[in-house]
Amino acid sequence: MQKNTKPCYYPEYLQLNKLLDAQHPESTKYGAEAHDETLFIIVHQAYELWFKQVLHEIHSILPVLSQSHVDESNISTVNLRLERIHRIQDVLVDQIDILETMTPLDFLDFRDYLIPASGFQSIQFKEIEILLGLKSEYRINFDKKSFYSRLNEKDRNYLMDLEEKPSLFDAVEKWLERMPFLEFGDFKFWNIFKDAVETMLAHDEKVLKDADYLSDAEKTFQLNDLENTHATFDALFDKEKYDELKTQGRFRMSQEATLSALFINLYREQPMLNGPFRLLQSLVEIDEKFTTWRYRHTTMVLRMIGSKIGTGGSAGHDYLRQTTQNNRFFRDLFNLTTFLIPRSALPKLPDEVIKAMNF
Amino acid sequence: MQKNTKPCYYPEYLQLNKLLDAQHPESTKYGAEAHDETLFIIVHQAYELWFKQVLHEIHSILPVLSQSHVDESNISTVNLRLERIHRIQDVLVDQIDILETMTPLDFLDFRDYLIPASGFQSIQFKEIEILLGLKSEYRINFDKKSFYSRLNEKDRNYLMDLEEKPSLFDAVEKWLERMPFLEFGDFKFWNIFKDAVETMLAHDEKVLKDADYLSDAEKTFQLNDLENTHATFDALFDKEKYDELKTQGRFRMSQEATLSALFINLYREQPMLNGPFRLLQSLVEIDEKFTTWRYRHTTMVLRMIGSKIGTGGSAGHDYLRQTTQNNRFFRDLFNLTTFLIPRSALPKLPDEVIKAMNF
Amino acid sequence: MQKNTKPCYYPEYLQLNKLLDAQHPESTKYGAEAHDETLFIIVHQAYELWFKQVLHEIHSILPVLSQSHVDESNISTVNLRLERIHRIQDVLVDQIDILETMTPLDFLDFRDYLIPASGFQSIQFKEIEILLGLKSEYRINFDKKSFYSRLNEKDRNYLMDLEEKPSLFDAVEKWLERMPFLEFGDFKFWNIFKDAVETMLAHDEKVLKDADYLSDAEKTFQLNDLENTHATFDALFDKEKYDELKTQGRFRMSQEATLSALFINLYREQPMLNGPFRLLQSLVEIDEKFTTWRYRHTTMVLRMIGSKIGTGGSAGHDYLRQTTQNNRFFRDLFNLTTFLIPRSALPKLPDEVIKAMNF
Amino acid sequence: MQKNTKPCYYPEYLQLNKLLDAQHPESTKYGAEAHDETLFIIVHQAYELWFKQVLHEIHSILPVLSQSHVDESNISTVNLRLERIHRIQDVLVDQIDILETMTPLDFLDFRDYLIPASGFQSIQFKEIEILLGLKSEYRINFDKKSFYSRLNEKDRNYLMDLEEKPSLFDAVEKWLERMPFLEFGDFKFWNIFKDAVETMLAHDEKVLKDADYLSDAEKTFQLNDLENTHATFDALFDKEKYDELKTQGRFRMSQEATLSALFINLYREQPMLNGPFRLLQSLVEIDEKFTTWRYRHTTMVLRMIGSKIGTGGSAGHDYLRQTTQNNRFFRDLFNLTTFLIPRSALPKLPDEVIKAMNF
Repeated sequence: MQKNTKPCYYPEYLQLNKLLDAQHPESTKYGAEAHDETLFIIVHQAYELWFKQVLHEIHSILPVLSQSHVDESNISTVNLRLERIHRIQDVLVDQIDILETMTPLDFLDFRDYLIPASGFQSIQFKEIEILLGLKSEYRINFDKKSFYSRLNEKDRNYLMDLEEKPSLFDAVEKWLERMPFLEFGDFKFWNIFKDAVETMLAHDEKVLKDADYLSDAEKTFQLNDLENTHATFDALFDKEKYDELKTQGRFRMSQEATLSALFINLYREQPMLNGPFRLLQSLVEIDEKFTTWRYRHTTMVLRMIGSKIGTGGSAGHDYLRQTTQNNRFFRDLFNLTTFLIPRSALPKLPDEVIKAMNF
Repeated sequence: MQKNTKPCYYPEYLQLNKLLDAQHPESTKYGAEAHDETLFIIVHQAYELWFKQVLHEIHSILPVLSQSHVDESNISTVNLRLERIHRIQDVLVDQIDILETMTPLDFLDFRDYLIPASGFQSIQFKEIEILLGLKSEYRINFDKKSFYSRLNEKDRNYLMDLEEKPSLFDAVEKWLERMPFLEFGDFKFWNIFKDAVETMLAHDEKVLKDADYLSDAEKTFQLNDLENTHATFDALFDKEKYDELKTQGRFRMSQEATLSALFINLYREQPMLNGPFRLLQSLVEIDEKFTTWRYRHTTMVLRMIGSKIGTGGSAGHDYLRQTTQNNRFFRDLFNLTTFLIPRSALPKLPDEVIKAMNF
Repeated sequence: MQKNTKPCYYPEYLQLNKLLDAQHPESTKYGAEAHDETLFIIVHQAYELWFKQVLHEIHSILPVLSQSHVDESNISTVNLRLERIHRIQDVLVDQIDILETMTPLDFLDFRDYLIPASGFQSIQFKEIEILLGLKSEYRINFDKKSFYSRLNEKDRNYLMDLEEKPSLFDAVEKWLERMPFLEFGDFKFWNIFKDAVETMLAHDEKVLKDADYLSDAEKTFQLNDLENTHATFDALFDKEKYDELKTQGRFRMSQEATLSALFINLYREQPMLNGPFRLLQSLVEIDEKFTTWRYRHTTMVLRMIGSKIGTGGSAGHDYLRQTTQNNRFFRDLFNLTTFLIPRSALPKLPDEVIKAMNF
Repeated sequence: MQKNTKPCYYPEYLQLNKLLDAQHPESTKYGAEAHDETLFIIVHQAYELWFKQVLHEIHSILPVLSQSHVDESNISTVNLRLERIHRIQDVLVDQIDILETMTPLDFLDFRDYLIPASGFQSIQFKEIEILLGLKSEYRINFDKKSFYSRLNEKDRNYLMDLEEKPSLFDAVEKWLERMPFLEFGDFKFWNIFKDAVETMLAHDEKVLKDADYLSDAEKTFQLNDLENTHATFDALFDKEKYDELKTQGRFRMSQEATLSALFINLYREQPMLNGPFRLLQSLVEIDEKFTTWRYRHTTMVLRMIGSKIGTGGSAGHDYLRQTTQNNRFFRDLFNLTTFLIPRSALPKLPDEVIKAMNF
């Protein structure tokens, strides 16, 4: 490490001359300054700073996971960076508490000046969504149309190009597909697992049929539900059925990737799978935290403007409410719990498989 | 204050002999102890302790707000206790983070032993819901049926009796109805306010029609939305229309109470209205925090059991997801923001009204 | 409200071109970029954005509290802004969780490039400290010397000028001194209060002497402590003694201000005192939250660099640890609890005093 | 998994009859119930429930770490349970926010009835302290004496017996001592590391001497500090010097354990060391969170009772403040950062060592 040649001064290092000269309320231009507009600007600027950091982490993770062989020490670095994203997301949520100290009346003092600006114009946030893997086709209709319409041409083109590049979703899917050890010599893991599942489902069916605390209507409903679970399990092991469900949007990941992810979830306690399991869990956590953030944000908007129109001319909260759950990136990973079976029913891995997994 | 006659010993004061002897995992009875069942028991016990405290506060607030005259120092005490409930609700949410350290596989180790027990059997939580004002008729269908069906007779009768008694919702409604100063000599507040609203809506309409950044379809959609807002405003000042919307479930509070609440929201900065405004806001906050709790709880259940059946034989998460938003107690107060207008458009109160408000 | 003449575009409104072009790691200049330096820059920039917002609020509060008459609706606005500062402080603390995802090894990768920059060069933070009322003379020795030495001349002069202007501490002190109703006709509040205090202290002395669970040494220690409390109480009502203790640094506020603050604390439930009490409590809370922040920050630094020298060449954490408790602004308000007596022992205010207080 | 033979009912499963019948305010016995005493009881009961859960986890971790060979999947389970303890500690801290809604005046309403009960009589908390490794000899004087004096004989004996048994500190120390690979064939790790350290310290010395932004006094101070760091480094590799410092209380862990812990910290990115590193970090985090809890608790007590005597007749807050930092269990692990050197200066491990580490 080379010595620095020029003493470093904190305000210059942080470029505070730029940073602290970037708050210019519109209300000042049109007459009296609305006291709370500064807060509105600063909270959104803080969001954008953190979005930049999230992008910095995603951009560092992507090439690592895209390598044809990802070794364990890399998984460990990826996990640390994903966990940093979690902490940032926590702060994104906490910042809503600050914004909520602004009352509706205070917001109405400058709302009109911002028309038609809108949070939907945050290029960095859209960049995060695209890089994590939210394809246009997954968006709800309203979102599909308006996602690009409110942007200027440069911003729109930038994002449309980005959609063509591999996302974190793609990288994770490929990394999972490359995972070995699902068939090992005579050991056909999925055959044994299928038997265990059948036993579990039969058990659940018996529990339901014996349940005298349930009304007949409830029983029928539950048994129906169980049948659906059964069908989904069947599809999991049948490429044709799986791909059909994938076309219908029930799955987004390939069958191979889903099976690998399930295996990692089932045998997470194997040292070799610790890192991969934390990685999958971290991805679900990112979804979880963005969902919480969208939810809190929706409620805040609703509290702030009621059913009034948003600054971008959109029926603000309704749209937001719908995206809350829809825009998950790693839904398939989240849904895996449906396929878990009790540890006691889990096939024991043969010693040579365990040895092979730990090299 | 009398001196205590017998020295107090911490473990006895807290009755730890009872408290710490109340954790008996079912798994132990049926074979090997599942390590995580203790956590499952303790987290729910901690919930129940806090529910008891919330009930203690609600029971102390109810008689105060039910008096024919509630003076300001009482409002202040009520506010402190409502804010205590908020802090407790924060901890209820935080406790989910603890429960989430249990993995689905760990839960499957003892889930079957708990059938058909279920969180829906928490009498204290139902008691809170009823005391805050959630009538059976407001519940979603699934909830309506199952709310009582899983309880033993004693518990069911206790709660059904409770439904007959006045709730916090009822007390708040009556307290708002009793509020004075909406008509004061020649000053007819609502007439002036109606004019201000008309001006604002006309302004919003013009903004929308001029909005060349909106497509025609979007414009039509937004203008339609604006018309609905207009209609709701009209109903606000027309008893007949209001009561019709009330019958349809659009409002739950009486017109008089809604108008008082709106007035308090509009003139919250008047010293006399500070306390009442904080009170209304605190009630909305209680809703908000329970909604967050239900939401986090739903997601946790989904992550824990996937689409599998819940311990109570219910399709756990689906039910929970629907109650998340539906079971708000003070929806009317939350929706008031729709009726706010910019401070600059707000009618100035005549000096004699202000003087009268501050006695 | 005038219509805006030019459509507002979110990225321009937030001046993202400046904001997002202000992150330039030193490590890049000296060779390979250290991945985590971006985080280091962004977390400090986010701090500075929030400091700007805190200053915005303080600057709006100061003139209000400096008026010769502060009416209740102003108190209410001040309280809302102080509570906004609390929420911002919560986020300042939460941001430490993000920074802690950087490991010591990662920090060592670029630490040397930052020499001698240091958080002590945050002009805005020093501005906050000065505006809240931290005089140079209250700082610990180390801090006194180094507070200005690391700044360039312009920054130093700016802050030294600021020290000459009235702070929030000064404004609050004067506002408290102006408070009426401590003597009212025949009612000499403090005489009655003194009697109540004597009774309480006599009671405490008896409790201690009767305490057979205490050893003789412990008893002597406690009784000594009680005597000190007695002496401080005496000083409270004796201008000469009070001013002596003030010279010694035991008090910072004038006797008149302290007595007003005590009165507000004792009779907080009086409607008229609700606002003032929340204001005093909010000031203590600001102290509390900065103390927590300093404490968490110290621990983080210690974990990051051990007992190594800080980037500013200072023995980082030792200094920080000492300022944690020392740099409270409203110590006197915090210490008031010593002078509280049980509600049952509190003199009842005569009706005419209560009436006068509520006008 | 066997089917349960008897349907499970939620209120019975949680033994709510015991749990919810354990709140009996003393104030009720002596006259009028103090409204807030219920809160005081419930918050402490919630603490005790969580302490029980923490003990449940510690008791499950201890035997695992005490095995002569701890395999990686066990480390992984231990880590999950330590992280559960973190989440519980977060809730312990959050609960203080609830207690702080009680005002000093409200507490004074029932404080006297509780004399001489005190939180120092929480057997479970002392049990946690002892099990984690806080020996009597490490306590500050005040704590040493009073730790046992306020307990009844049964409780005292129980804890004194516990002090004789191996603690988590002991188990971790032994586990670290057993760690292999510090010498491997020709590769003498610590010799190479010592050279790297000398280079780093020489670099730091030069930086300081060149620092024209430091006054002479500051330079002397810093250089002195650097010399101390040098001496501690020397001791690290010299058994005799190390043991001397250990006698003086500068270290608590054996030299072998400290060196293993340092190695794990330096090469944490090696897959084989991931688990062990997270384990060490989790232990430090437990300390950190208890320190935060003690600190917040102290401040809360101070705010509640000022410098008045605590319910246990102790000068409450002074004692608490001193224990805040002193009662860390894993101080040695926390202090390791002093011995870290920049990653670029770190000796590269020979391939055969890396291969051996990963088996």
